[in-house]
Amino acid sequence: MDSSVSSPAATAARTDTLRIDGARLWRSLMDLARIGATPKGGVCRIALTDEDRAGRDQVADWCRAAGLEVRVDEVGNMFARRAGTDPQARAVATGSHIDTQPSGGKFDGNFGVLAGLEVMRTLNDHGIATRAPLEVAVWTNEEGTRFTPVMMGSGAFAGVFMPDFVHAQVDGAGLSVGDELRRIGYLGAQPCGEVPGGGYAAYFEAHIEQGPVLEDAGLPIGVVSGALGQRWFDATVTGMDAHAGPTPMALRRDAMLGAARMVEAVNRIALDEAPHGRGTVGSLQVVPNSRNVIPGKVTFSVDLRNLTDEGLDRMEAALRKRFAQIADETRVEVELRQVVQFDACHFDAACVASVRSAAEQLGLPHMDVVSGAGHDAVYVAQVAPTGMIFVPCKDGISHNEIEDALPEHIEAGANVLLLAMLERAG
Amino acid sequence: MDSSVSSPAATAARTDTLRIDGARLWRSLMDLARIGATPKGGVCRIALTDEDRAGRDQVADWCRAAGLEVRVDEVGNMFARRAGTDPQARAVATGSHIDTQPSGGKFDGNFGVLAGLEVMRTLNDHGIATRAPLEVAVWTNEEGTRFTPVMMGSGAFAGVFMPDFVHAQVDGAGLSVGDELRRIGYLGAQPCGEVPGGGYAAYFEAHIEQGPVLEDAGLPIGVVSGALGQRWFDATVTGMDAHAGPTPMALRRDAMLGAARMVEAVNRIALDEAPHGRGTVGSLQVVPNSRNVIPGKVTFSVDLRNLTDEGLDRMEAALRKRFAQIADETRVEVELRQVVQFDACHFDAACVASVRSAAEQLGLPHMDVVSGAGHDAVYVAQVAPTGMIFVPCKDGISHNEIEDALPEHIEAGANVLLLAMLERAG
Repeated sequence: MDSSVSSPAATAARTDTLRIDGARLWRSLMDLARIGATPKGGVCRIALTDEDRAGRDQVADWCRAAGLEVRVDEVGNMFARRAGTDPQARAVATGSHIDTQPSGGKFDGNFGVLAGLEVMRTLNDHGIATRAPLEVAVWTNEEGTRFTPVMMGSGAFAGVFMPDFVHAQVDGAGLSVGDELRRIGYLGAQPCGEVPGGGYAAYFEAHIEQGPVLEDAGLPIGVVSGALGQRWFDATVTGMDAHAGPTPMALRRDAMLGAARMVEAVNRIALDEAPHGRGTVGSLQVVPNSRNVIPGKVTFSVDLRNLTDEGLDRMEAALRKRFAQIADETRVEVELRQVVQFDACHFDAACVASVRSAAEQLGLPHMDVVSGAGHDAVYVAQVAPTGMIFVPCKDGISHNEIEDALPEHIEAGANVLLLAMLERAG
Repeated sequence: MDSSVSSPAATAARTDTLRIDGARLWRSLMDLARIGATPKGGVCRIALTDEDRAGRDQVADWCRAAGLEVRVDEVGNMFARRAGTDPQARAVATGSHIDTQPSGGKFDGNFGVLAGLEVMRTLNDHGIATRAPLEVAVWTNEEGTRFTPVMMGSGAFAGVFMPDFVHAQVDGAGLSVGDELRRIGYLGAQPCGEVPGGGYAAYFEAHIEQGPVLEDAGLPIGVVSGALGQRWFDATVTGMDAHAGPTPMALRRDAMLGAARMVEAVNRIALDEAPHGRGTVGSLQVVPNSRNVIPGKVTFSVDLRNLTDEGLDRMEAALRKRFAQIADETRVEVELRQVVQFDACHFDAACVASVRSAAEQLGLPHMDVVSGAGHDAVYVAQVAPTGMIFVPCKDGISHNEIEDALPEHIEAGANVLLLAMLERAG
């Protein structure tokens, strides 16, 4: 290493014009997308399958070729480290995941991992050393498609899930995470949550937005200030099965009518918390589901999200109150059971500021946004100062084989990541 | 036959106090319910199965034992005739069906057939001859569970379905009505729709109400003035799948929200046509039906019923208008396809009056009601003056193994049938 280029003054001067190689990043994204490629142009690379192994092997090979040191922890999280000049400095990290939904796309997760790799390659190209070590993390099983819970690796890293619990989780075929990690060769030795030299000084994750806000606003960069809190419920509405013909309207106990009003109420409750409130009934089942029988039972899911836990408290209280009123009105019974809770997440102010100033330094139009979805960064934020960078995706579509993004947005997001990491790594 | 008891004056005098044997009728109902009995106390005697054959054989045996002449027509309808004294008189008929739903009850259909048989037995007991012949009809495949269309035998009798069409209908296993009729020995020779001596002078059908109106009113007898017209539709609502988290409320095209408002609209449209309007969404499917995905597609059924075809026209027009408005409001598309139409049915005024005066003569509290469901009588009404008698069923429940009725209501309904038939048969 040429010691002259590692002086802080020289580095600072050079980073003003330092840019990642957008074409190389795009090529790597397309190369990685070949592993598990689907006929419709998407990717099926489900956690801990042979495709996941092949994807991990490819990323690890690229990391080693870039001079990075690859470690694997006991839940399969991979970390690729670029050494810093200060042995005391804690690492500045980035990362995401490379597992996909069954009909997933090329960018979800993969962009964050390969943008991190591209940052390393760019620094190598220019012979730039950083004071703090840099690290790219590849978190295990973010999607939660095959094994629950979702965001398993980053959750374990944050201490939310114990490694034994993680290893014991089984898929639909009864195969366990522990056995599958061993089978694919990614059951590592490093204790989960340990970082050489101490915890991360900062963690940045670049990700496609998976929503329509940036595209709708015509902006390439979203400065993510946090993630919405989430509360999920299962609702069961019980009325009375009866024949659609002989039963007058006044004598009905129609579970479908009750459920329909509750769907409307979920929507209303979210609108009352604009712009960050979200309310969704995504799944609904009718019993007996026969054309000429008044439904006796309807079950459905409720997904509430909001920027603050207080906001979620308001939504949940309104939900319980309205559902009880509607049950009375329609002469049905309703039972509400909470199944998931994620508290609202506020990213570290300094990390958010680093992302914003990087975008400004690059002259990239940007806006502050909140992540509506969960991300590995939400768990990492529990143990390290964290920020996220969003780039638009086409039509806001993700978890779909038609998921797409523009090369210029991908490049812009990776440049923001580069400058944000450099600012924190010195 | 003792000719003295057949004089009209003597008959008229004796019918004032003539009553059916309620205990015998109940016993026959329970005996027939053993064929295809289910563990939960219901009956599974699906059309043209071995159980249907056994049920038919039992009823035919009872009819022959009562001195009736049994005929079978080319679609398997059975007719059991008690001769009259006037060779020119056209028959007065009753009947119903003995096929059941897969988890059906003991009374639906069976009551009408066995009440007819009990009328014959009662007349035999008292040595009463009628001027006109009397007939009990057992219609093939009323339920439509195994073979569509429903009310197949009575529909064919009324000329709505041609015998060749009926024979060609197949079940889920590919077996045809024609082959199954032959297999169980009920493919008769009599041309469908032909009645010896000419068409029926009158047709009365006794049936459990299959709804809650009589029970709610505390009355044993419903004088049925007609049957609601029916129009059934399939609706498809198309929005856009999107992630529940990242997609703000304002940018959604939520097919579930659109569908929920349409369910509410169906209910509203029926209430606007009180008391006879009915609107039901009995079946609904969500795509992709995932907890955290805004539904891109919802399909559902709409069942509209009303007393008049003009009323149904109003309901259909309101449905189309409101669905289009809701689709606009919620930024979804809706497609509406009609799948079934039954015009409103008004029973013969004189037959309805005969039922009412029979109830009055018996001192039985009664009310005029309209059938919300289809019945064989609705088809027979197209070719003969027709009336129906309803008796309450427990909790208004039918098409269910817990279907139940009180012996005193069963007896009351059969007595009304007896007097109504006698009035018409002279």
